[in-house]
Amino acid sequence: METVLDKLTQKNDKKLLLLVIDGIGGAPYRGKTELEAAYTPNMDRLAKSYITGVADPVAPGITPGSGPGHLALFGYDPLRYEIGRGILEALGVGLEVTPKDVAVRGNFATIDDNGIIIDRRAGRISTDLNRQLCTRIQQEIKTIDGVEIIVKPGKEHRFVLILRGDKLSDKVTETDPQKEGNPPLRCEPLVPEATHTAEVVNKFVDATRKLLNPPANFVLLRGFAKHPQLKSMRERFKLTPAGIATYPMYKGLARLVGMDILETGPELEDEIETLRKNWDNYDFFYFHIKRTDSLGEDGNWEAKVELIEKIDKLLPDILDLHPDVLVITGDHSTPAILKAHSWHPVPVLFVSPYVIPDKSEAFNERECMHGGLGRIRLLDLLPLMLAHGLKLKKYGA
Amino acid sequence: METVLDKLTQKNDKKLLLLVIDGIGGAPYRGKTELEAAYTPNMDRLAKSYITGVADPVAPGITPGSGPGHLALFGYDPLRYEIGRGILEALGVGLEVTPKDVAVRGNFATIDDNGIIIDRRAGRISTDLNRQLCTRIQQEIKTIDGVEIIVKPGKEHRFVLILRGDKLSDKVTETDPQKEGNPPLRCEPLVPEATHTAEVVNKFVDATRKLLNPPANFVLLRGFAKHPQLKSMRERFKLTPAGIATYPMYKGLARLVGMDILETGPELEDEIETLRKNWDNYDFFYFHIKRTDSLGEDGNWEAKVELIEKIDKLLPDILDLHPDVLVITGDHSTPAILKAHSWHPVPVLFVSPYVIPDKSEAFNERECMHGGLGRIRLLDLLPLMLAHGLKLKKYGA
Repeated sequence: METVLDKLTQKNDKKLLLLVIDGIGGAPYRGKTELEAAYTPNMDRLAKSYITGVADPVAPGITPGSGPGHLALFGYDPLRYEIGRGILEALGVGLEVTPKDVAVRGNFATIDDNGIIIDRRAGRISTDLNRQLCTRIQQEIKTIDGVEIIVKPGKEHRFVLILRGDKLSDKVTETDPQKEGNPPLRCEPLVPEATHTAEVVNKFVDATRKLLNPPANFVLLRGFAKHPQLKSMRERFKLTPAGIATYPMYKGLARLVGMDILETGPELEDEIETLRKNWDNYDFFYFHIKRTDSLGEDGNWEAKVELIEKIDKLLPDILDLHPDVLVITGDHSTPAILKAHSWHPVPVLFVSPYVIPDKSEAFNERECMHGGLGRIRLLDLLPLMLAHGLKLKKYGA
Repeated sequence: METVLDKLTQKNDKKLLLLVIDGIGGAPYRGKTELEAAYTPNMDRLAKSYITGVADPVAPGITPGSGPGHLALFGYDPLRYEIGRGILEALGVGLEVTPKDVAVRGNFATIDDNGIIIDRRAGRISTDLNRQLCTRIQQEIKTIDGVEIIVKPGKEHRFVLILRGDKLSDKVTETDPQKEGNPPLRCEPLVPEATHTAEVVNKFVDATRKLLNPPANFVLLRGFAKHPQLKSMRERFKLTPAGIATYPMYKGLARLVGMDILETGPELEDEIETLRKNWDNYDFFYFHIKRTDSLGEDGNWEAKVELIEKIDKLLPDILDLHPDVLVITGDHSTPAILKAHSWHPVPVLFVSPYVIPDKSEAFNERECMHGGLGRIRLLDLLPLMLAHGLKLKKYGA
């Protein structure tokens, strides 16, 4: 399908806007989902005039992480492409990753005098101490055997390591035994080509030991991952795409598929202003709203409802730009009652003069599951956006 | 997808109950399907409170046999795996089958002095006589050319033959011409590697002739099949599964995917009692009700409606066990007006505290086709059950 799709794309000046309300999908609490409880006259009016449906980010029953959810949204099959944990973490702390890199997730940990791990998180050291340790490591360890070493702190005990060099491999074992009371593991190659990488990893671990003191006297490494090297959206879909997001991971995901990342401020109003200012320069916008997901994960049903209401209130500012195709959906559901991502298909609101309006009366899970789009794969959404933007040629004669 | 799914499964104590009403799906007779005509207040109440949908056992338009329908229900792609008739029969009579086996369906038949088949079922001899004949054959024929011979009676004229040995093949022709007035066929290899197997089969047929008298004076063999060697549900889904069924074939199907088969009586009440007694010992129950299908195949619309009403009446006894996830569906449709399995997608009723209730008002084909689950593949059902039982980890970070 992907090969067929890519051959059909054509450039025009229609503007597509993909509004991703992260974790938008909910589940009933006192009989109503977050979207059902929220007062959303603008989205409801669009649902009445256009069409809705639901979409499975990966497949029915599968709960996706942000990586697979976004891959699907961007038109990349999440069962075919995988973004390794290390890459996601690197993107999350705002590191640029290149095809030469192996990215790794690191933990500061505590080991005792016998070399046994007694705390995999070093007592959750402060982010400040983490920053100091990463600075010290970065200053002392710049290269190992010709491989560039990049270390960047995350929150508390978490940091990201990037190995940058030729012929590196992510086919190595993790050093984190994932359980306290065990010694850390040596990094071993899983294929012969990874021998060099494993050596560099072990030398890095050894070198850090001299720089670290309790409680953070050891580093545990896992989630070794190479850059997925995706063909860009420009190349595949003949789009000129831009991403507007406030959190590093989502900027990184957008960068992975070749979007320009637009500088913006922390608030929804800032993102809308960024969209407005750049409206003439692109024909595809990925607009990401993060906090709905965070509030869902916190189990804060009320605040998620209020945020949805705020988004709805600001929606006219976006509609004023008159996108030719507007899709409002999520990368996955995050019901506040579950305090986590879930498998529930995401509600989809699809706006274009070329849709055939369905019987939807409002934008929420219950209306969407009976919507005219039916139950589709999230991966089907981008081709539908391209089609409604008249950006797809006929297939076959 | 299968590989991805299997990696996400995790054990917990949530209990999943898959209630398979065989051939439940119907078609209108005087304007109403069997499910529509039946008075089913309990299922209708569940449909109102939870969610419904329809599922294609194999693909739209494809009428499945019991094998493919059940494979899909159990989470095994029926287009990828095939269960040969002989294997189904062998499992059905309670024979253990191993990867070394070729299983065959046998009929006792009557041939005349000219070697022409005059009754393919030997006048449907009694099961008692069948047992005597199988015992005689088994006593006299224990091995042929180093291949172990196992014979076990089924009902009336049916028996199962297992050839157990090295390098056996199921790529051989059947000896049953499927039509009276013809001579039986010799077994021929379809590939060179099957020459040995065909020889053993023909020697078996010849050897039995000396042991048999009219009316059951010949054996017809068909459905040669090797064990499909499926990974078990325990291994794939980390479930501890049990099957409750009254008919041998369904016990066999459940055994094929590694379920424990629970001893039960012939009536629905017996099956419920078995479920109750074993409730604490398993976390997945396949509960099979056979007679709806038989009545559909008989074209007995009235009796099928009555049986559905009886099932509904007994449903509270099942609900009293409080399964965490309950799915009521079929392995295929068997509309009484067609007197056969059909291609119609099966209605699905899905009960879990984590579903987002849809607008369904009752449990029948018409409500289900507009239900909130949409039109899914029957293969998607088990992942959805696992998800609602919180037995699936997140896919990707």
